[in-house]
Order: sequence, then structure tokens, then C-alpha cells
Amino acid sequence: MGYYALIMAGGGGTRLWPLSRRSLPKQALRLVGERTMFEHAVDRIAPIFQPDEIYVVTTADQEEPLMFQAPDLPRANFLVEPLGRGTAPAIGLGAIHIKRRDPDAVMVVLTADHFIRDVDTFRRVLRAAAQVAEEGHLVTLGISPTFPSTGYGYIKQGEKLGDVDGFAVYRAERFTEKPSAETAFMMVESGEYTWNSGMFIWRVDRILEEFARQMPGFYNQLVQVEAVLGTPAYEQTLKRIWPQVTPQTIDYGIMEGAEDVVVIPVDIGWSDVGNWSSMRDILPADEDGNVVVGEHLGIDTRNTIVFGRGRLIATIGLEEMIVVDTEDALLICPVEREQEVREVVRRLKELDRNDLL
Amino acid sequence: MGYYALIMAGGGGTRLWPLSRRSLPKQALRLVGERTMFEHAVDRIAPIFQPDEIYVVTTADQEEPLMFQAPDLPRANFLVEPLGRGTAPAIGLGAIHIKRRDPDAVMVVLTADHFIRDVDTFRRVLRAAAQVAEEGHLVTLGISPTFPSTGYGYIKQGEKLGDVDGFAVYRAERFTEKPSAETAFMMVESGEYTWNSGMFIWRVDRILEEFARQMPGFYNQLVQVEAVLGTPAYEQTLKRIWPQVTPQTIDYGIMEGAEDVVVIPVDIGWSDVGNWSSMRDILPADEDGNVVVGEHLGIDTRNTIVFGRGRLIATIGLEEMIVVDTEDALLICPVEREQEVREVVRRLKELDRNDLL
Repeated sequence: MGYYALIMAGGGGTRLWPLSRRSLPKQALRLVGERTMFEHAVDRIAPIFQPDEIYVVTTADQEEPLMFQAPDLPRANFLVEPLGRGTAPAIGLGAIHIKRRDPDAVMVVLTADHFIRDVDTFRRVLRAAAQVAEEGHLVTLGISPTFPSTGYGYIKQGEKLGDVDGFAVYRAERFTEKPSAETAFMMVESGEYTWNSGMFIWRVDRILEEFARQMPGFYNQLVQVEAVLGTPAYEQTLKRIWPQVTPQTIDYGIMEGAEDVVVIPVDIGWSDVGNWSSMRDILPADEDGNVVVGEHLGIDTRNTIVFGRGRLIATIGLEEMIVVDTEDALLICPVEREQEVREVVRRLKELDRNDLL
Repeated sequence: MGYYALIMAGGGGTRLWPLSRRSLPKQALRLVGERTMFEHAVDRIAPIFQPDEIYVVTTADQEEPLMFQAPDLPRANFLVEPLGRGTAPAIGLGAIHIKRRDPDAVMVVLTADHFIRDVDTFRRVLRAAAQVAEEGHLVTLGISPTFPSTGYGYIKQGEKLGDVDGFAVYRAERFTEKPSAETAFMMVESGEYTWNSGMFIWRVDRILEEFARQMPGFYNQLVQVEAVLGTPAYEQTLKRIWPQVTPQTIDYGIMEGAEDVVVIPVDIGWSDVGNWSSMRDILPADEDGNVVVGEHLGIDTRNTIVFGRGRLIATIGLEEMIVVDTEDALLICPVEREQEVREVVRRLKELDRNDLL
């Protein structure tokens, strides 16, 4: 049985504005040290996959930079969508490529823009999950919640099916979208829910079966692409069909209605780094509780996130603030109002400031 | 009678850090529009002085940039101190140069790094003051206080001597250093005090008389320089003598003990721009009370001073804050704590960060 990784690296987005931009998505950012989020994603699995077992699905504008960042991977393993259609089509495309190479393959679907602190446990659980997936289960990694997040989806555990290599395996009873604060609190209290990490492990035949059953229209389109895989017609066919594909997420399109889904709860120091305050999850704080990238001179400054590079940032009397300094834009806002960064981005759109988006 | 201006442009200092630096003193800053403070100082008096009637006293490192900013002034009118020795020696040096040109001259001592909003009244009061000075009085311009500042020196008015061109002239009874908050409040309440603007109008023979009486040591040194004025020995003599001169301010060295000092109170929208919050005195606020230089996108941001250039500054939920963005350093602090900017500068000295000082 072959064992392959598919790193989804097609995301855009400006949630970490002003650092992230349309043309500089989160996966391209150097949030931790000098490696990009994508490079970290490849580094994490390099010890358990051969380079040619690692696939990357992305969009045309990101292909070159990603290839540059992961020069060990074969160029053919970069699967380029003519345009992004959400996670479901991206995974479908990955599945037919991997299936063509090995119809019995187990594929591990990974994200390119999340952070994982405990990489050893992460690798161990992937191995365990592969064993579970071989039996035909659709395996999801559920992150043991550390606080009642309203920013993540949740998975409800059902019956426990057993243990594999020290990891408990549960039937996944239900997928829940981002909850209200109250609901999140109750879910975390119950101990029966984990965060939906967006990482999945399954046999390619099983997931394609689910596509056929739950997204038959898309599956039909996918089969047309599969028919020309490895032929000169491939690129043209993909370019013709993909714009007609209806955008869809794997959670909504497949997972919520899939059969035989299991969840393996894990504690791997995972964060999706979905906003600036989550920098606290991925970088250590100094003695004043400040999380700092770059040069900071703080006087009476506490619990503040300072993200800069190349410029001294001097702060006096700040508390629970976010300061993000980039070449052409600077953001200053209280931690508790960081959701309003979206409003800044919206106004920049209104002002046609594409240079800053 | 000749009438000459002496612009004192030798200041250094980092009170407006991170914008001002040792090598970029306040007079070199573009705080209002595209003209430097020094350029504004020259512009203000250009309608009432011929270019060759305007002298500038400065230090060697500032000479070239200042000449570049005021190309209409004769090069010979830039008087260069080998090193700064405070306002008293700078004024003494100016006085002997102007006296050599016209022993009966009235000289107007002006600053290069203050802001004046009502330039018309300023010019009118200078003309009035010149008439008063001709009679032998040492004239000071006293600024009608608009709030109980603890950052300025004060002048107490004595007996009223008369009116000249609509300006009241009082005997100056006492010079007071920067007061406590309580004293400042009482002084402003009394209506008998004005701020010491550092601008003076007097006959050169009268001020040199005061130097001879009150600062005889320095006067003796000054006479040695005067003896070689206009000869090839001038520069060498100045370079030899100036390092031996004891630093002194005109207020402490002369004004506090001078005879026949008068004060003319004026309301000319004057500010010494001594700190970032005084930007409010010199620039209009927007509808949210923000004073902005550069590009600002504020969400729920009020009474905040944003000084940037060339980079978008986006702020959310700031109130009564100061944000100063420069090429290599960024400052963020509450208005009420701006005196602690000194502490930032002190720490940078400790850290030997001369690149930022």
C-alpha cells in the first residue's frame, strides 16, 4: 500500500493583513523564523515521506514560489488548479492523481498554513491514522480544544472504536460549523468535541466513492479530467472544466454527510494562525507577556503582539495591543478588536487600494 | 538705522524622536507641509527684510543644509559656530557681525524651530518692537498664554509704558523658568504673565553692553573675535576661542539680570513644537479630533496624533495616542505619557544605537 501526502496550498486571503495580501497568502508568510508556513508544512512530513510521495495542490500564481520553496519535490507533484474552487475540488484533483499512481493508496490531506508545535506526535498520529484509513474509514484529526474557540469548526465524538498506537479512535458523530461563544463553551466543557483541523487521512478509492455519492456533478467533471491524466490533453481539459466546477468545501460537501468517518483526537499544539492574536499560540511570550517578531523597545508594554521587521518599534504604555509593521502599511489595534481588521481591508477595497490588498 | 534679523538655527535634540535626530534637528523637519521649520522661519520674515539683512547662526554640520534651504541669503550671512555654546554666545556672535555692518543696527533675534500661525501680526509686532528697541529698550516678545503650560518660561509684566502701533508695551518685571503646574495655573489666571518666546529685539550696542556687564568673561572672548572680523584670521580665532567659551543661555546669562527690559504681549498662534502633542497647535484636527500627517485609515480612532509618510497607517480603537512612523523607527505611546519618549532615547543611548539617535 502506498502512502502519499497532499498539501493544500491554494489559499489566498488577507486575515493577517497587513502582512498577508492577495498575492502573499498566509502559506507564504515567515511567521516563525525564516521558513515560510509552506516550508514548515513540507519540513514536518519530510521524515515520513519520500519527496516524490508529497503532492501539492495550488493555483497558477502560487506554483512558482512554492516550487522554489520546496526544490526537492518533483515538479510533476505540483498540481495546479486553473483557479481555486475550494477544498473539495482541490482534494478531488489530488485524489485522481494519486489514484493513477497507486489505486490502493492512502492519502493524507494536509494544510500549508497551519502551525503544529509537537511535530513528533503529529508524525506518530499520521502513521496510526494511516492504519485506520487502510480499513476504509475516513479519518479526521481532531484537535483537543484548549479554549472555547468560536473560530474553528468542531467534531463530535461518538462510540470509541479502539486504540491504535496509543491514539484513541472514535466514530465521528457530527461536524459543526463555527459555534456561538455559548455553544463553544458547552462543547469544550463536555469533553466530547474536538476542533476540525482540516487534516484527513483516507484511501483514495473511499474518498472518490464519497465524491461520486455526495457530489455527483463534480465527480462527473473529475472523471473527465481523470480520463486524460498523463496525456497532452490534460491541461486543456482541466482549463475547460475547472471554471465550470461549483466551489465547495470538503467539510460541507463531503464530511458532514460522509459514511464511516472516524476522528482521532490529538494534542499537537495546533493553531490555524487565523488572526494576529493566534501569534501567541505559535511564539513564546517575553517576561512582560509580549510576543515579538523584530526589534521592540517596550516601556511599560504588556501582553502586546508586535510583528515587525527591520524597523525599531518603540512602545510606551501599551497593553493587549497588536502592532504589525510592514513595508507599506502599519496596523495598530487592540487585541479585542482584531476582527475589525476585516473592516480595514473592506475600506481599502472601496478605496481601490489594490496595492495594499 | 539698519534693521537685521538673526535666526538661531543651531539646535540639535531629539524631543521629536523618532523624527528628529542628532543629525536632523527640529529646524530641519517638515512638520507643516513640504517646507522645513527653518524655511518657514525665513519665509515669515522675507517680506520685511532684504535677503542680505537676514543672518543665520548655526553649527558646522548644519551649515550646508541650511544654505541649501535658503539659497537667496548671502553665504557670508551664515555665521558658523565651531560648536554650539548655547543661545548667549550665538547671539553675541551675531551681534558683533551685525554691529560691524551697522553700529546703530537694531537686531531681531528669531528662532528657527518654532511655529507661528498668524504671520501678519508677527510681522507687525516686529516693526513695532523695532521702534521700541531704537529707544534703547531690550524688547522681548511675550506670548499670551492659552493654557497653563509647564513647558515654557514666563515673563511677568510690570508697569505699562505705552502703546506702539496698537501693541501694549510693559516693563518686564521678572523672568521665570518652567514652573510647576500649580504656579503655571496661578500665573495664567493672573493675566500678568506671558510665555517667553525666545524672540528678542534690541540695538546691538545695548545687548553688547549687557554682555560686557553680565558676562564679562565671554564678552572678553567676543572682543577678540570682533578684532579679527573680516580678516583671514577670523576662522582660526573663532576655532581657538569658542571651545573655551562657557555654555550659557540668553535667558539665564542676560535677560534675568538685564536693565530696561520690556515685553510686548502678542497673540500670534505661537508654539515651540516641543513635543508631539504640540502638533495639535500647528495642524488642524479632522472631525474625529485626529491630527494626521500622511495616510491614515482610522476606525473608531479619536484625538490621536498620527505622523507618517509614505506608509498607510491603519488604526482601530485608538484614543489620545501618538503614532510616529519613520523610515527606521516607529513610536506608539499615549499622549499623556509622551514625556517618556526621553526614556526611549536614553535606552537607545545605552544600547549604543547611534543609528537611531
